[in-house]
Amino acid sequence: MISPTSRFLSNSWRSSIILQTQSIFNLRTQRSFSATPWRLLRTTEMTDEQLASVRIDRQRLWKDIHTTCEWGKGEKWGPEETNIGMSRLTLSDADKQARDWFVETTESLGCKVTVDAMGNIFAVRPGKKDGPPTFAGSHLDTQPTGGRYDGILGVHAGIEALKAMNDHEISTEFPTGVINWTNEEGARFPISMVSSGVWAGAFPIEKAYDLVEVGGGKATQKSELERIGYLGSTEASYKANPIGAHFELHIEQGPILESSGGKIGAVEGVQAYKWFTVTVQGRDCHTGTTDFQNRSDAMLTAAKLILHSHNKAFELGCLASTGILTLKPGSTNTVPGLVRFSLDIRSKDDAKLQRLEEALKEDFSEIADGKDIGGLNTLGTKGRGCTMEWQLDTDSPATKFHEDCIKCVEASAADMLGTKASAQVQRMTSGAGHDSVYTSRRSPTSMIFVPCRDGVSHNPAEYCSPEDCGNGAQVLLGAMLRYDRLRAEKGA
Amino acid sequence: MISPTSRFLSNSWRSSIILQTQSIFNLRTQRSFSATPWRLLRTTEMTDEQLASVRIDRQRLWKDIHTTCEWGKGEKWGPEETNIGMSRLTLSDADKQARDWFVETTESLGCKVTVDAMGNIFAVRPGKKDGPPTFAGSHLDTQPTGGRYDGILGVHAGIEALKAMNDHEISTEFPTGVINWTNEEGARFPISMVSSGVWAGAFPIEKAYDLVEVGGGKATQKSELERIGYLGSTEASYKANPIGAHFELHIEQGPILESSGGKIGAVEGVQAYKWFTVTVQGRDCHTGTTDFQNRSDAMLTAAKLILHSHNKAFELGCLASTGILTLKPGSTNTVPGLVRFSLDIRSKDDAKLQRLEEALKEDFSEIADGKDIGGLNTLGTKGRGCTMEWQLDTDSPATKFHEDCIKCVEASAADMLGTKASAQVQRMTSGAGHDSVYTSRRSPTSMIFVPCRDGVSHNPAEYCSPEDCGNGAQVLLGAMLRYDRLRAEKGA
Repeated sequence: MISPTSRFLSNSWRSSIILQTQSIFNLRTQRSFSATPWRLLRTTEMTDEQLASVRIDRQRLWKDIHTTCEWGKGEKWGPEETNIGMSRLTLSDADKQARDWFVETTESLGCKVTVDAMGNIFAVRPGKKDGPPTFAGSHLDTQPTGGRYDGILGVHAGIEALKAMNDHEISTEFPTGVINWTNEEGARFPISMVSSGVWAGAFPIEKAYDLVEVGGGKATQKSELERIGYLGSTEASYKANPIGAHFELHIEQGPILESSGGKIGAVEGVQAYKWFTVTVQGRDCHTGTTDFQNRSDAMLTAAKLILHSHNKAFELGCLASTGILTLKPGSTNTVPGLVRFSLDIRSKDDAKLQRLEEALKEDFSEIADGKDIGGLNTLGTKGRGCTMEWQLDTDSPATKFHEDCIKCVEASAADMLGTKASAQVQRMTSGAGHDSVYTSRRSPTSMIFVPCRDGVSHNPAEYCSPEDCGNGAQVLLGAMLRYDRLRAEKGA
Repeated sequence: MISPTSRFLSNSWRSSIILQTQSIFNLRTQRSFSATPWRLLRTTEMTDEQLASVRIDRQRLWKDIHTTCEWGKGEKWGPEETNIGMSRLTLSDADKQARDWFVETTESLGCKVTVDAMGNIFAVRPGKKDGPPTFAGSHLDTQPTGGRYDGILGVHAGIEALKAMNDHEISTEFPTGVINWTNEEGARFPISMVSSGVWAGAFPIEKAYDLVEVGGGKATQKSELERIGYLGSTEASYKANPIGAHFELHIEQGPILESSGGKIGAVEGVQAYKWFTVTVQGRDCHTGTTDFQNRSDAMLTAAKLILHSHNKAFELGCLASTGILTLKPGSTNTVPGLVRFSLDIRSKDDAKLQRLEEALKEDFSEIADGKDIGGLNTLGTKGRGCTMEWQLDTDSPATKFHEDCIKCVEASAADMLGTKASAQVQRMTSGAGHDSVYTSRRSPTSMIFVPCRDGVSHNPAEYCSPEDCGNGAQVLLGAMLRYDRLRAEKGA
């Protein structure tokens, strides 16, 4: 099936593709393509060189990214037109605009679009045979003060890959496609990657539906799916809606590629992480009339615990972070009796993470109770003590991606970078969770990382250059085509 | 002027007063009252014993307190009908109901009621002569999770004192009255005692009017005064509306009286305090991909600063507290780039408070910058540092009350407690700020403290027994009558 867009390509553009394709074939291969018209190019009939010659349109990709970033614009941070952050919380009005654009655009490319019961959108470009599609997938939602590349780049690169297949009139053996996963960020409804998680059977859909937005509002994930018209009828399940493979292009969100001169990360897996809500219960009292030893100060206790979580995580080679903290009653001259804070702990190694969790659970109770651990309870600040509660919100064990997928990424990167590949392509572990964590439980998966400036992400000033965006999309396209050929060869 | 209430006292009640009064006079004084009908009793004609015999109605006081606490009820904390906290933020609908009751009740007692431009309500019972009234004053607003006695007891005791004067048909030399001060708590519009402060000329009315409610709403103190109909036409000023003396009954809000067996605190003054808003600026980044040394974590920095403020305050014999903390962007997997927190520091001594402020200003910057003070910046948690800003919100120097007023309180307490007074009355310094801080700048002032259970205040479970409420109101009445007589004797 040829897309409406490619049907109306100008003659000059079409001619240039023919010339480019022919010249490459003439130069690089011995095989005659006379029996295979260019408009029916099959991945199984293409050599590595032919695969390498299929190029995305880098300018079009860049333009498309910043066009859709008009919906949900955030904070301006620099002089350029695109130096504006994003604030496109999942299932907001702005997210609906981006989703509508996604559906309209992929349909115009000839895709069949399916929305599942979690609002995940699957756009599928048919292949020669039926079967679970080879997908590019990521997300269009952002953090409240996010940037223009986290998630957004991956979805756009997937669409650009489909456009390039149309432009080059390539017919894949199996269907290909692009997925926009709902609420990857977990910023509004506080479980991240929740909808790929439901798809993978990691938790029941009711749990996802019932999530209430943070910040005191009353909307649930289900009510917002209904409100914006993206509560689909297809079951959100790997059984009802299987995936053949999942490739996700993403900015690294860290400093490793940039500082080492790397251009492409072939991601082998994702570090383990757990999210907790920690509740500290003390007692409200007047700040002016209650001496330190008679206080049960939930805020002071939380400060000790947050500091201790960092020290302990560093000691064990892990990470710890607190991104949300709320307190009650919230008055300058009342010592808070209740504090709740988020605790995000991470490690490449499941066992290390387990050790950190156990250590913190033990230490937190003792610190809250007044025991002097790490100099945190000196005479003056010990007080009468507080009580503690832990709630586990997310548990994401360390993930290993599929070697076939990783190798397709490496080969595609080598196609693009040539002799520089050995210096500029590196295997990496992702520090952040991504929808690929859950897809990897149910289908071969890998990710592609590209550098982002200073490693900054979840910040309006997050930036990935046009060159790096293009590099990533190019490697994504190549990996999808190579994987399609591999599937056909393996007969899977 | 005799109040409508006393006009309709039952004959039996009236007779009992006459009998009681006559018997006391016969027993304790040599002077004949034949020339002075009981219904025109003047304070200057009363002996100490006669003054001591004028009693409030303890049951009526208790009932009135809990009647008005129906408006703005908070959290239930115990089995009794009155075991319910208060959530009556200033200028809320519930506060308007309490204000309307105040106006109606005091007018029914024969008072002239004036509302000034800050919504302060002055109810004045005429005396033999004109002149600035001797007032009881406090406030009807509460903390968001407050109790039934902080402020409320003082206003009710003032009204009960006027009722007792009516019941006993006492004619004071100068006018007496009761004041309900607006927004003593500073919980909704974040300057405490703001309206007595404007009255005293401590800050311009525009500053008070422009205060915006905490918690993200848009209402200002002025817009809410207008909305509930309490933006009065009288200038809020000690010049336009002078006060002869100010007595304030209050629960201690601390554990001293209770733990020492004291019943009445004769308050000599109020400790100095300052309120600041501290802003920590870091940089948002992803919690999973940013190692500790590349973070500018505003939340971790705030935790260090809060802990340090307590340690330093303890070292210098002062207090420090953080009751409000907000952060941005507020997402579990984003390291916060911005934290703002309140810092409340206190000391009995202005110079000590100054030393604490200077030390914290110096240390906070260095800690935020990464210097290891007090073990707060170890290798693991140092990061790239954050920047700091301080904003002074309230500056209340140490206050000394008026010796004449303090002595009237002591004498009135001795009247009530008799031989136990030496053990049960003590001079104290208030840890909390009160409207008396500002009235003391412009008129003789003192306060009366009564015990509250466990020293708990700013908490739904704040509790003052019927006996202690009654004791406080009784001492308040006696102090006002004694001060009226003293004024007349001094001719002021």
